[in-house]
Amino acid sequence: MQVVSVKKALDGSIAPDTKVEVRGWVRTRRDSKAGISFVNVTDGSTFDPIQVVAPNTLPNYEKEVLHLTAGASVVCRGTLVKSQGKGQSFEVQAEEVKVLGFVDDPDTYPIQPKQHTLEFLREVAHLRPRTNTFGAITRVRHVAAQAVHRFFHEEGFFWVNTPIITASDAEGAGQMFRVSTLDAVNPPRTDGGKIDWGKDFFGKEAYLTVSGQLNVEAYCLALSKVYTFGPTFRAENSNTTRHLAEFWMIEPELAFADLNEDANLAERFLKYVFKAVLNECGPDMKFFEERQQKGVIERMEKFINSSFERIDYTDAIEILKKAKKKFDYAPEWGNDLQTEHERYLTEEHVGRPVVVMNYPEKIKAFYMRLNEDGRTVAAMDVLAPGIGEIIGGSQREERLDMLDKRMVQFGLKPEHYQWYRDLRRYGSVPHAGFGLGFERLIVYMCGLQNIRDAIPYPRVPGSAQF
Amino acid sequence: MQVVSVKKALDGSIAPDTKVEVRGWVRTRRDSKAGISFVNVTDGSTFDPIQVVAPNTLPNYEKEVLHLTAGASVVCRGTLVKSQGKGQSFEVQAEEVKVLGFVDDPDTYPIQPKQHTLEFLREVAHLRPRTNTFGAITRVRHVAAQAVHRFFHEEGFFWVNTPIITASDAEGAGQMFRVSTLDAVNPPRTDGGKIDWGKDFFGKEAYLTVSGQLNVEAYCLALSKVYTFGPTFRAENSNTTRHLAEFWMIEPELAFADLNEDANLAERFLKYVFKAVLNECGPDMKFFEERQQKGVIERMEKFINSSFERIDYTDAIEILKKAKKKFDYAPEWGNDLQTEHERYLTEEHVGRPVVVMNYPEKIKAFYMRLNEDGRTVAAMDVLAPGIGEIIGGSQREERLDMLDKRMVQFGLKPEHYQWYRDLRRYGSVPHAGFGLGFERLIVYMCGLQNIRDAIPYPRVPGSAQF
Repeated sequence: MQVVSVKKALDGSIAPDTKVEVRGWVRTRRDSKAGISFVNVTDGSTFDPIQVVAPNTLPNYEKEVLHLTAGASVVCRGTLVKSQGKGQSFEVQAEEVKVLGFVDDPDTYPIQPKQHTLEFLREVAHLRPRTNTFGAITRVRHVAAQAVHRFFHEEGFFWVNTPIITASDAEGAGQMFRVSTLDAVNPPRTDGGKIDWGKDFFGKEAYLTVSGQLNVEAYCLALSKVYTFGPTFRAENSNTTRHLAEFWMIEPELAFADLNEDANLAERFLKYVFKAVLNECGPDMKFFEERQQKGVIERMEKFINSSFERIDYTDAIEILKKAKKKFDYAPEWGNDLQTEHERYLTEEHVGRPVVVMNYPEKIKAFYMRLNEDGRTVAAMDVLAPGIGEIIGGSQREERLDMLDKRMVQFGLKPEHYQWYRDLRRYGSVPHAGFGLGFERLIVYMCGLQNIRDAIPYPRVPGSAQF
Repeated sequence: MQVVSVKKALDGSIAPDTKVEVRGWVRTRRDSKAGISFVNVTDGSTFDPIQVVAPNTLPNYEKEVLHLTAGASVVCRGTLVKSQGKGQSFEVQAEEVKVLGFVDDPDTYPIQPKQHTLEFLREVAHLRPRTNTFGAITRVRHVAAQAVHRFFHEEGFFWVNTPIITASDAEGAGQMFRVSTLDAVNPPRTDGGKIDWGKDFFGKEAYLTVSGQLNVEAYCLALSKVYTFGPTFRAENSNTTRHLAEFWMIEPELAFADLNEDANLAERFLKYVFKAVLNECGPDMKFFEERQQKGVIERMEKFINSSFERIDYTDAIEILKKAKKKFDYAPEWGNDLQTEHERYLTEEHVGRPVVVMNYPEKIKAFYMRLNEDGRTVAAMDVLAPGIGEIIGGSQREERLDMLDKRMVQFGLKPEHYQWYRDLRRYGSVPHAGFGLGFERLIVYMCGLQNIRDAIPYPRVPGSAQF
């Protein structure tokens, strides 16, 4: 008896009439008047369940099979045969249906075989992986993550996990979560009444990282091609559908490279990941197309087959000013682009992905390389139709004197960044990189509306799962 | 002019006499009396540097080439030729050596071309990736991490990233780091003077996760085969060479499986990762063999070619009691095994990796499945020669009534674990999994003495890099 996944049972790689064992959870049960039950069983290995045909000759037919409800766990043994039914390739003619676990009080089981709102499912996060939607999201996440690692490996990049707990001030990088083991009620204090952080676990104040970029630069200036892929944190209390307090970030860093090569890398990267998901998640993507967002597959296919347009920020502002469209925010040189601007550029003006390059230096971070014009930096945003910005990147300022000037300009103290300055003191080279939120990619590919549905456990105040 | 990595330039895949451009950092420079400089250049793509032969006919020979020191960055253009020298396959006959960045004050540059102690290098963590040792560790980490993801993918597992910030009490799982955005000096308080956690970011107390296992179980009971690979945290203040406050953990979870299948999975997993590192990191492993720990390659080869021995914990105690060896701690049924016991079993008694199974229920976690004998649980430890325990795992208690009993026995409140209990109420199935620290694997493969050398940034109080 061959134990097979539902995926394998359905994909035609097993000869018909083979004896198989399939294990999984019941999706639905339908009983015919002829005394046969059709039990759809899923094990998460693929989108579709397999139909198990259970005749009333099974010894436990009356006592157990007829009591199977959605969510019950079963081990089914029988013969794999070509299915007569529509929409399925193979089914199992059961000779044994062993019930491992029934559902306690089926009427109140949260995952009924019907469509649930995503809002409701966020409240039962521990059970939502059992739904079609979250099974599919999990598989897409997995395939996308694998593709991320594979892409960089094939391009000669090394994965580096930068620190999660950090003591760097990261001034100006947004709100941070503090990490501490001090007694919150009665923390040790200095004579002045301040907290004595010297007594904390690390001997100083510690936070959760907002980005691994600065740290990964040190590895870039030794191993040339590196990337991070790990969790990052933002403590902004923005309860929007676009922001998460905890999310996974991908940050490649490339030595001996300028902004153009950075944009090339971003283009190859996105296309590679999209291709992998379309190739490996066919049934899941079909489901998102039908149930989540029409056109989501075509959008990815067009993305893969387009060359990215490159527009200078200064030109982009001119384009926006000349546009016949009415914007909520008037485009103006010196301001960051709003999502409405980004979407106009990529969707209406060009109709393809766009890389906007060379932003005003005042609105970008201190580590970005100042251009010859003295008023822009070598920064880029990759804009995708349907969502706007999906990647942000820059060439880094590799000239120590310029870096110091920029730090002072941004109110940062160079002496707080000695190690980062060292990278420019010792064999400095031009280098560039970008960052993107993994969940934003998932939102884009699956056509989701709320980024909380792109993570395995939504973190919603008040939810059962936190 | 073809831009090539040092790895590619050395591996024989480029025809001799091809014009190439190599970019990297100077390791050493040697000048011959004939007016030729031999500059060893590395770019981190592989262990060995490539020799660049720079004749004094280069226009910047006097002014720049003769001033190159370790760490300076260069772009070298020239002809790739077979090398006459010993120990190298190819070299570059330079037609141009462009210096991108010299080393500011070479005499005080921390990474001199000599051997440094690992203690010293922990204090210059941002520069240590430029050394042979940490270049090699980074490549081994990368190859091992890729192998982890590839192994599980090929076995049909899905990667799930469980939450880093968690509100679960995780009672008894060790010291945790608190995560908060409250003002530490003047936190909001309740009338009783306690901290008002309801005003904190998540509306309740929050911590850094110590393990993703409980969370990943929910995905296992929907997708059958899942794994986590992400950071976990322990706030134990044990400043040993074996413990980290932040480390990456790998935790697969397998449905419809018992402890035996769990052990099989662990065996396949370790062998797969070791094979990948031996196959893909040849020069790095050779270096560890020569400089770090003799026998480290043979140990891995033997590991791969051994079948794992399985010993019941009760039998293991008998074996240890009968051993002629004098232990610091006398083996006794009911106590956990000490490292000295583990190493005796795997190194001396069996001479191969050992899986010890079925530990006393009192010394293991509440979620492990109680055996028929009522006094042991279906727990396992995988012991490896040279290090002892490398993996810990168990079959999980899938019976709700038994789980509740075990929770009460461990002083836990079942009502705090309703979501975890739900997994047993709704279609429960036997399932099992294991966990291992990624850094411990790196320590083992690279023959390191201190686990702080297995992470990209050591977290040592007082170090420049935190």
